[in-house]
Amino acid sequence: MKEKEQNTIAVAQTAFAHFSHGLATGEWQPFLDILTDDFYFWFPVGKFHGLNEGKERAKEFFEYVAEAYSEGLEVNLDRITSNDTTVVFEFRDRGPMWGHPYKNRVAVSFDVRGDKICAYREYLGSDGKSN
Amino acid sequence: MKEKEQNTIAVAQTAFAHFSHGLATGEWQPFLDILTDDFYFWFPVGKFHGLNEGKERAKEFFEYVAEAYSEGLEVNLDRITSNDTTVVFEFRDRGPMWGHPYKNRVAVSFDVRGDKICAYREYLGSDGKSN
Repeated sequence: MKEKEQNTIAVAQTAFAHFSHGLATGEWQPFLDILTDDFYFWFPVGKFHGLNEGKERAKEFFEYVAEAYSEGLEVNLDRITSNDTTVVFEFRDRGPMWGHPYKNRVAVSFDVRGDKICAYREYLGSDGKSN
Repeated sequence: MKEKEQNTIAVAQTAFAHFSHGLATGEWQPFLDILTDDFYFWFPVGKFHGLNEGKERAKEFFEYVAEAYSEGLEVNLDRITSNDTTVVFEFRDRGPMWGHPYKNRVAVSFDVRGDKICAYREYLGSDGKSN
């Protein structure tokens, strides 16, 4: 594996650890700190559906996530794939959403630039009721 | 890149070409031919939601897909990531579904065994109305 892809994987794995920590605890600052200033993300559903641009928007989103999953989400990572600039994490999550049982299958695709994440795309593999 | 991963990517790319051809034309036999007998897939929504096991079930599914998108779907591949056994394709698609406008963002994760696909997982990145 080339050096660039090794760096990409290492940065993305650190970011995914922060991402999982955010889902589990509601503490999103470590993840926000690893995003570039021009970061953007795509989200599949709800009021953040579509393209969301900028760190300020990301902050709003993760505040919303911390509220929706206030008891935390458990994450089980199944699989990692990569290329020179992108790493995809396939995982399952579960935990209460607004107090109701929630579980899903998820793929997040992180784009790496230098030692930061400059973009990601989230994809859902189930209906929020099974994983 | 190791030889095994190179083979995995080559097999998955052939499979994805058949998959895109199926979406575009409704001809799914080339894709079905590249699946192992114990093939299974996960689908996010609708009557094939969840785990679907066996080639017979896959055949039923793709007959349903050919009916739903009878005018064909256009596929735009954005990104490929891989490891030794799995390749993820991120793409956008568009075209009529049951005669109504449809477009989505999609990630499919193909597991390769030898020269065949033994499993895949599909994830949706949007709402069927935008991509």
